[in-house]
Amino acid sequence: MNRHIIIYILTCGCLFLYLPDVFPNKEISITHFGIEPNNGKDATLAVRNAINYCSEKKINKLIFPKGKYDFYPKLATEKTVYISNNTDGEKRITFSIDNMKNFEIDGGGATFIFHGYICPFVIKNCKNIILNNFSIDFSRTFHSEGIIKAVHKDEIEVYFPEKYPFKIENERLIFTDGKKIEYPYGSLLEYNTLKKETAYQVHDYYTGPVLKAENIGQRQVRIHLKDVKGTPGNTMVFAPNHRLCPAITIDNTQDINIANITLYHCGGMGVIAQRSKNITVNKMKVSAAQDRTVSCTADATHFANCEGKIILTDCLFENQMDDATNIHGIYMRIEKILSSTSLLLRLVHYEQYGMDIFKKGQKVELVNAQTVETYSINNVESVKRYNKEFYQVEFKENLPSALKEKDVVGSAIYPEVILKNCICQNNRARGVLLGSRTKIIVEGNKFHTPGAAIMTGGDTEYWFEQGGVSNLEIKNNIFDNCNYGVWGDAAIQIAAGSKDKRNSPRFNHNIIIENNTFNVFDPRILKVSSVDGLIFRHNKINHSTAYPAIHTTAEPFNIENSTNINIQK
Amino acid sequence: MNRHIIIYILTCGCLFLYLPDVFPNKEISITHFGIEPNNGKDATLAVRNAINYCSEKKINKLIFPKGKYDFYPKLATEKTVYISNNTDGEKRITFSIDNMKNFEIDGGGATFIFHGYICPFVIKNCKNIILNNFSIDFSRTFHSEGIIKAVHKDEIEVYFPEKYPFKIENERLIFTDGKKIEYPYGSLLEYNTLKKETAYQVHDYYTGPVLKAENIGQRQVRIHLKDVKGTPGNTMVFAPNHRLCPAITIDNTQDINIANITLYHCGGMGVIAQRSKNITVNKMKVSAAQDRTVSCTADATHFANCEGKIILTDCLFENQMDDATNIHGIYMRIEKILSSTSLLLRLVHYEQYGMDIFKKGQKVELVNAQTVETYSINNVESVKRYNKEFYQVEFKENLPSALKEKDVVGSAIYPEVILKNCICQNNRARGVLLGSRTKIIVEGNKFHTPGAAIMTGGDTEYWFEQGGVSNLEIKNNIFDNCNYGVWGDAAIQIAAGSKDKRNSPRFNHNIIIENNTFNVFDPRILKVSSVDGLIFRHNKINHSTAYPAIHTTAEPFNIENSTNINIQK
Repeated sequence: MNRHIIIYILTCGCLFLYLPDVFPNKEISITHFGIEPNNGKDATLAVRNAINYCSEKKINKLIFPKGKYDFYPKLATEKTVYISNNTDGEKRITFSIDNMKNFEIDGGGATFIFHGYICPFVIKNCKNIILNNFSIDFSRTFHSEGIIKAVHKDEIEVYFPEKYPFKIENERLIFTDGKKIEYPYGSLLEYNTLKKETAYQVHDYYTGPVLKAENIGQRQVRIHLKDVKGTPGNTMVFAPNHRLCPAITIDNTQDINIANITLYHCGGMGVIAQRSKNITVNKMKVSAAQDRTVSCTADATHFANCEGKIILTDCLFENQMDDATNIHGIYMRIEKILSSTSLLLRLVHYEQYGMDIFKKGQKVELVNAQTVETYSINNVESVKRYNKEFYQVEFKENLPSALKEKDVVGSAIYPEVILKNCICQNNRARGVLLGSRTKIIVEGNKFHTPGAAIMTGGDTEYWFEQGGVSNLEIKNNIFDNCNYGVWGDAAIQIAAGSKDKRNSPRFNHNIIIENNTFNVFDPRILKVSSVDGLIFRHNKINHSTAYPAIHTTAEPFNIENSTNINIQK
Repeated sequence: MNRHIIIYILTCGCLFLYLPDVFPNKEISITHFGIEPNNGKDATLAVRNAINYCSEKKINKLIFPKGKYDFYPKLATEKTVYISNNTDGEKRITFSIDNMKNFEIDGGGATFIFHGYICPFVIKNCKNIILNNFSIDFSRTFHSEGIIKAVHKDEIEVYFPEKYPFKIENERLIFTDGKKIEYPYGSLLEYNTLKKETAYQVHDYYTGPVLKAENIGQRQVRIHLKDVKGTPGNTMVFAPNHRLCPAITIDNTQDINIANITLYHCGGMGVIAQRSKNITVNKMKVSAAQDRTVSCTADATHFANCEGKIILTDCLFENQMDDATNIHGIYMRIEKILSSTSLLLRLVHYEQYGMDIFKKGQKVELVNAQTVETYSINNVESVKRYNKEFYQVEFKENLPSALKEKDVVGSAIYPEVILKNCICQNNRARGVLLGSRTKIIVEGNKFHTPGAAIMTGGDTEYWFEQGGVSNLEIKNNIFDNCNYGVWGDAAIQIAAGSKDKRNSPRFNHNIIIENNTFNVFDPRILKVSSVDGLIFRHNKINHSTAYPAIHTTAEPFNIENSTNINIQK
């Protein structure tokens, strides 16, 4: 092997690679590991061997000659992975990058095609990682799309193109890969085929994976679904009932730069970073392939319990089946007060299981579950994990007397957030969900979302997502006819979670909304709850007829339970 | 804690505890860990703390005062476990005994009740372990039982007692715990309610978990199932579609003694030992609770790739949903010949995934997949695991030229087996499946099984279970009206796996069957294939009318493809 390896000594370190002088940059091509682009072979073992080699030999860059590479689960790395807001469990992983630093994957414009249930990238316990310049797609999507042919009472007839194999078994519709592997669905949503966006004001049908159906020939299926609606010619999307295969998972990693990556599809989120620090996503394009309506099957990006800086710039986030981004912490619920310094804590939502969010020395906030107010900041002395749901946490100090069971505990370290020059459009649900008590800048973006474009919140009842903002600037953005769907009450919603009417306006602070353009067919521009300090000024509001007008009598500005609100219309 | 601990210094070591003098026996009661019997509280944490304590402090015996103890998954240990012939995955475990030696759990006649999806015992990497004197049951069984009320064409009406909660959702029958947890089924089997055995000549209905059904009131359900048959008054058992929660899992452990344990139920096998050495099961009783028809939902006991001695004595194995025992190795299939000394091997059956059966220094047999003949013995130099399915194995020697892809590789170390004074009856399927190339003694047992009482085999096509016998004695047993079901062709079947007609009789050797009593309504006593050397002598054959006669014209002795067969009728 060694004689085939070409080592390039670079004369300058690239961005984010601050290497010591004794350790010059070295790079190697994937072709040295027995694979060529476009040959149709499984490149999994080549990648596995290449990453191992780079890790052992401290190679800084793995290069892919441009072309197509195929990846199968067969010889992939296997790990049990807990991924926030996705589905945990034993995974097959193609690029398993663990415990590495100063390492770049340079795709050179390559196309990575994944086949079956596999996670493209899982990056864990790393420092200074770059993923650059490639695209990700799957040979068979985790969702399925069909064209609506006819709609009758409690019945809908749908045509499925050949790329969405299906069978009717025991009177039930089941999607497959054409062979043995199944692609179960959990919900249905109608899309406008031409606009590639969710149809006007449609909602999800939560059906589970066993819809009653008959094969009526010519790849058409009659599906029985109570009160189903739909417009012939539109696309009915059958969303997966899992998020097993997110594209890029980042766990407990510092300094990661994702650039020039096009994500056509994955079975979960596009980029999910958790317990990580300093994440930059630049010129990422999440978009449906030409012949599809949907890109990834959940959020384009998502950040849970991250620190440092989260920077999203010059990205396109479209067609994904959930928000463009969601930045939040995780609340653990107090299951039992064990002593004056010790709590039994529970991760309540099943998609947060296994998130080891607390460690020795961690600063945490204790939060009243009713008011979402923080009533104490404490420090963790030690953590004992019983299993992926329950943790016993010892604190350095005596806990306050106000503390009670069912209150929640979150990290008191929050990331700075910059969201700049991004386009968020034609997805399902909202634009960006922002929860961080440091500085958040949302600038120069364009939003065309079926729900709220920008939302803040947090809740202590279902998702247990820690939210609230302390310093939020929203400026120079275009809000282009948002809320054509059902996932919001205004273009911008500042809230305090699911129990909106909090007792005191202390959850959100210091918000400025200025120099934005709002194109509105729906008059609801701003909804504010539980805020102390908000300025709305110098914004331009254009009335539009892009969609049928509804909520015509609604107030543009809906303020409740807040103080120091300055709306300059 | 320490001041509450009473240390007993025993003057003699108990059986199987060969302790060095410097380390006297010590014991402790579970009550010292904050739990009392019969108080209805979750004893999980007490057990967890007790085992940790015993492990750290080298306590040799954990004692339970007689009474009832309840165990829930909530605070249980969590581990990903690969369990041969059961369902692998992330498990909650009550008694997780890992890396301990010289340790006994003395149940003192206690009743252990498990609630939900939990594995009672997983014993891994241990030496010299005793489990003694307790019973295991679950508050909600993984299977469900209903009384057949009526049978029509393609329909059956079944009454489910309250202990089997169910719902009809989307026209589908789903079993639950009465709350949110589901108990999915995969197949149905009819039982004679009074005899507590499978109904005469019935077969499994493999249905999957979504049978079409209507609730017809009074806890009765009409189920649609093509060609269903059944007798009103009989019990229809809905078997789980998984084996997630076997009762006692033993992995990579040496010298284990299971004694005086009553197993009423678990969701998988009763005792499953793999890659372990010297296992004794004495006076174990696997039996259905009084108000049930079925005990555990798979084999009562099962041994995969074990070594040393397997001793089963004075046990009762009844009502379980598969065999009383199955002793075999595992064949890995040659996926690819990588070099003259290196193979890519695959575990093919999904219930064998993760079985790390080979290690450095292991002696293995290379086996022709067509003839099941061993053509070479080789030695393992190293093993690289790609994932739970694929392994790269390097051998010390050059591999033989006869070797070809799709042939199989198994361990060449086999256990001695003693099965003595056991009762195997009223289960589903066979009695005992025996595959080991050393000495096997089957003596003084009683069999009343719906399939063959004793079977040998092995196959290279579906189960990939390594079999064959070299020295099998079957003496002084009673075969009492076996084959009243569909799982066999004779009381004793000596075969070579699924491809019965092998080219040469080399798979089984040296079998003696003597001084047994056969009570037969079905004349088929012995079926022999691929055997070199068998004596059948001094056996008593009593004709019976216990069941309707079928196969009346069949030969009692069916010999094919064998040599040196001596049948003395």
